Amino acid sequence: MKNIIDLPNATAERIPMYYRYLKMLEENQVQRIKSQEFSKIVHVPSATIRRDFSCFGELGRSGYGYDVVFLEKTFAKVLNIERLEKIALIGVGNLGLALIKNNFRRNPNLQITIAFEVNETLTDTIVSGVPIYGMDLLKEKIKENEITTAISTVPSSDANQVLQNLAAAGVHAVLNFAPERLDIPEGMTVRYIDLTSELQNLIYLSNRNQARIENDMVDQF
Amino acid sequence: MKNIIDLPNATAERIPMYYRYLKMLEENQVQRIKSQEFSKIVHVPSATIRRDFSCFGELGRSGYGYDVVFLEKTFAKVLNIERLEKIALIGVGNLGLALIKNNFRRNPNLQITIAFEVNETLTDTIVSGVPIYGMDLLKEKIKENEITTAISTVPSSDANQVLQNLAAAGVHAVLNFAPERLDIPEGMTVRYIDLTSELQNLIYLSNRNQARIENDMVDQF
Repeated sequence: MKNIIDLPNATAERIPMYYRYLKMLEENQVQRIKSQEFSKIVHVPSATIRRDFSCFGELGRSGYGYDVVFLEKTFAKVLNIERLEKIALIGVGNLGLALIKNNFRRNPNLQITIAFEVNETLTDTIVSGVPIYGMDLLKEKIKENEITTAISTVPSSDANQVLQNLAAAGVHAVLNFAPERLDIPEGMTVRYIDLTSELQNLIYLSNRNQARIENDMVDQF
Repeated sequence: MKNIIDLPNATAERIPMYYRYLKMLEENQVQRIKSQEFSKIVHVPSATIRRDFSCFGELGRSGYGYDVVFLEKTFAKVLNIERLEKIALIGVGNLGLALIKNNFRRNPNLQITIAFEVNETLTDTIVSGVPIYGMDLLKEKIKENEITTAISTVPSSDANQVLQNLAAAGVHAVLNFAPERLDIPEGMTVRYIDLTSELQNLIYLSNRNQARIENDMVDQF
């Protein structure tokens, strides 16, 4: 098995998704699966699946398929899935509230355990079991709870400052909902989720698809 | 300029982001920008930027850079940004409510105009100016409003049925927050946003980065 740090990025990106489907298969008592069958479930080409799985050693046998439980356990180990990941939420607006209330219930090992907010009607309250502190306690509380992962939903104008404060508190993984690209402190990993761009991309790609479909229809005459 | 349907997918994916930064530059009275400077802002290699921009004809001159306003107007046209895009929201839980309340205010041309929900305490009410109907009115109301774009936040168990109903109502673009891959009706374009997987990927990639940093430190001795 390759060392975790040597996996190709593209493979690494797919592992959480593979893991989720393997878990579903295991729950449905499926013991073995061929790459072609798995391909139809996860919508990834079977050659890519075989290449990805091969990074973890000889897990499949021709004509027999892959052992679902074994793969699932391998990926769980790679993802460190058994470890409870405590998460700090920065910014408890509408989106932040939705995140606290849902709190990744599909995955009991991901858990927002503390939150920070500037709005004083929310600070020093507890929402869905999550205490909400003022921003002045950010560094202290995050260190105290040994948290290394955060979700930021603060406005773009505050996002860079929040990132600096999080870095100073020892956080090295941040999921960021502000769309502007940030100055990322050294050693920190940031992922962006930008719903406006996602929607614009969707509409644009869909219009392009529609244009293609209409083109094809014209070509038929 | 290449026909919109002939653009490479990867280029198409980057256009909304390019557009957003160009607009920011224009608002800050920046008239010209070189690909190297733009690269630092958008975190895309300058060679990729030049290749992407070249799909739209000769927009830049060596040593002079690209005309910001011209590029911005070109991309606005490609993205059809001036057109008001009415959006239907399916599922008004915590996340759905956050989406209605924020309602893409950064982009006035994207607007959730109607919503649908099973929970009867919400149906037949108006939240932040958005009427919420029961699911039985989905097809009728979407057709009536000539809506072709939808956001679905319904649970995985209902997502496929919702997708079929949306297709029947004439919707061809869906942003989907349920993580499981769906049976996509013909001619429909679907994008998935899966916050749990995003977070798992983030934590995994960050741990990998941390391991690399520690590795490098060991190598120094």
